[in-house]
Amino acid sequence: MAQESKQSKRLTMVEIAKEAGVSTTTVSKVLNQLPGVGAQTRARIQRLIEQNDYVQNHAARHLRKGQSGSIDLVIMRLEGGYDLGIMHGVQDALEESGHRLTVFATHENEDTERLWLRRLLDRSTDGVLLLLPYERVGIPNALMEQNIPFVAIGDRNEPTTTFPTIGSTIWLGGYTATEHLISLGHRRIGIITGPLHLTTSRARLAGYREALERAGIGIDPALICEGNYLLGDGIKQTFTLLNQPDPPTAIFTGNDAQAAGVYQALYKRNIRIPDDMSVIGFDDVMYTAQMAPPLTTIHQPLIEMGRMATGMLLRLIAGLPLDSNHVELSTSLVVRESCAAPRTHPLSTT
Amino acid sequence: MAQESKQSKRLTMVEIAKEAGVSTTTVSKVLNQLPGVGAQTRARIQRLIEQNDYVQNHAARHLRKGQSGSIDLVIMRLEGGYDLGIMHGVQDALEESGHRLTVFATHENEDTERLWLRRLLDRSTDGVLLLLPYERVGIPNALMEQNIPFVAIGDRNEPTTTFPTIGSTIWLGGYTATEHLISLGHRRIGIITGPLHLTTSRARLAGYREALERAGIGIDPALICEGNYLLGDGIKQTFTLLNQPDPPTAIFTGNDAQAAGVYQALYKRNIRIPDDMSVIGFDDVMYTAQMAPPLTTIHQPLIEMGRMATGMLLRLIAGLPLDSNHVELSTSLVVRESCAAPRTHPLSTT
Repeated sequence: MAQESKQSKRLTMVEIAKEAGVSTTTVSKVLNQLPGVGAQTRARIQRLIEQNDYVQNHAARHLRKGQSGSIDLVIMRLEGGYDLGIMHGVQDALEESGHRLTVFATHENEDTERLWLRRLLDRSTDGVLLLLPYERVGIPNALMEQNIPFVAIGDRNEPTTTFPTIGSTIWLGGYTATEHLISLGHRRIGIITGPLHLTTSRARLAGYREALERAGIGIDPALICEGNYLLGDGIKQTFTLLNQPDPPTAIFTGNDAQAAGVYQALYKRNIRIPDDMSVIGFDDVMYTAQMAPPLTTIHQPLIEMGRMATGMLLRLIAGLPLDSNHVELSTSLVVRESCAAPRTHPLSTT
Repeated sequence: MAQESKQSKRLTMVEIAKEAGVSTTTVSKVLNQLPGVGAQTRARIQRLIEQNDYVQNHAARHLRKGQSGSIDLVIMRLEGGYDLGIMHGVQDALEESGHRLTVFATHENEDTERLWLRRLLDRSTDGVLLLLPYERVGIPNALMEQNIPFVAIGDRNEPTTTFPTIGSTIWLGGYTATEHLISLGHRRIGIITGPLHLTTSRARLAGYREALERAGIGIDPALICEGNYLLGDGIKQTFTLLNQPDPPTAIFTGNDAQAAGVYQALYKRNIRIPDDMSVIGFDDVMYTAQMAPPLTTIHQPLIEMGRMATGMLLRLIAGLPLDSNHVELSTSLVVRESCAAPRTHPLSTT
């Protein structure tokens, strides 16, 4: 550990680049664990770096570069499995780069957000990962004004922005979920959406409509219920669907929290999943495999989204260009035990 | 924001203390948002601090104090609701003190832990919150050697340590859970413990035994199953209990993840909760209220533990003494919908 405090003559990045006969961009890529450098070159640069104790004192390195060695992740609440999944991926990606992850929860409080923003500018964080709906307090605008690199993550956001964003294929997810139920033989499929002022809630609904239309199944507005992405609305809207003269044989919910509400409502009525009712969720947060029965759902690649967003951010910090300003990773169907063919005689609870 | 970069003559803590006619400890308490300062004195000091731009540039303040303004939270995995609850409390507490929270997940990998430790020493984090079983790589020893303030959090740990720890009243929790089932009329109560090499798993079991003994109910070793705190063992050991000639009418599990496994096993056998079987968990992680039916469980005050651990750490960083080196916060029973009186004729599945 004595070695750690050694402060004697270190090479700068420019000197290492010169010594290795490469560009500073290439050295930067190696330092930041980014792809695009051949194995041999990488090894040579790494040897030089190590010989010169370049990364040993990480704080010093970042200070020399005018960087703090720290990245901020800003989220709304430390509660959901959604945010936890993203954070997991961010951690994975930072493990190699050596940046520290500072986590900040805004609790949807504008004062708290402003406070964070002031501290951020004060302390020169290298970059920011935003896991917030973009409407909040103009954070993206403030970051752009201050030239702080950032990437916005999440399906809760609008895809038409001028800054780097990463999301997942929501519309396709809605289509896939509905198509799965249709393929099992369901014709009356209820949907409990998220808040319909959000583009991504509407994208799920549009995917649902598309699947029904392609299968030649008419759309019954009575089967479309709006929720708020929370458990309570999952319960409430399940009863709305069950209390209809011709209730659905399957329910698709906009997220997994609402699916948990559907489970509770069905359990109360002693309606078995999937025997009497199929249920499919959206997100694939960590507790879905723990539900009884385990929930079939649309997987959002949260860990991968966190990882890729971090990779994009590290490129921005290193001054490298992005391949694309908006990336969507693919959603996919995860079949567990909550969907089956409908009974021959559709369920009637009246 | 222009104000932020102003570097001109600021008072030191000593000067502010002199000006206010108080000790530097009192100024430190106000700066670190700690209790023990009267409202008037606090207001006077705060005015002086503000007039002299003392906290405006937070990074500078910490640098001047030889501090980084950052605290590390070290956990095993970014997965469970347990860690999330603690982190929530830590965030709450740091919101006022202005420290940044750096989160580090070790993934139970010793190399990763060593890497973190090296970086920690390198970057002079102000203090560390440890959410790990203490056996790991002698982290506490390393921190003590380096004089880095830290507090260990969690019920997974041994209570007999020389360094500051915070936990909860586990034995009492085990007693309370079992006593609740007895009060409902249960006499055959199964338990699925955690790994019995852990003191805190044994504490739950000891609480269970105590409650049965006090009620004059004999202890049947066939009703005691060991689990690993994961879902799978919850499922497996539920079947072990159900397949007995005289199965229990209620099951107490060492944590909520195992309770989710109990739910899945019972759902498979179409055994209704709580009508045919009562289930009680331990921890009260965030998804327990989402289970169908919502789980009755023993609440560990995770948020409060996180908050109090942070408060202890801030005192240590400020050079103030702790009231106690080991604190246990009280567990409590949370009654939801998974427990009821047993049926008159005990369930038999054979």
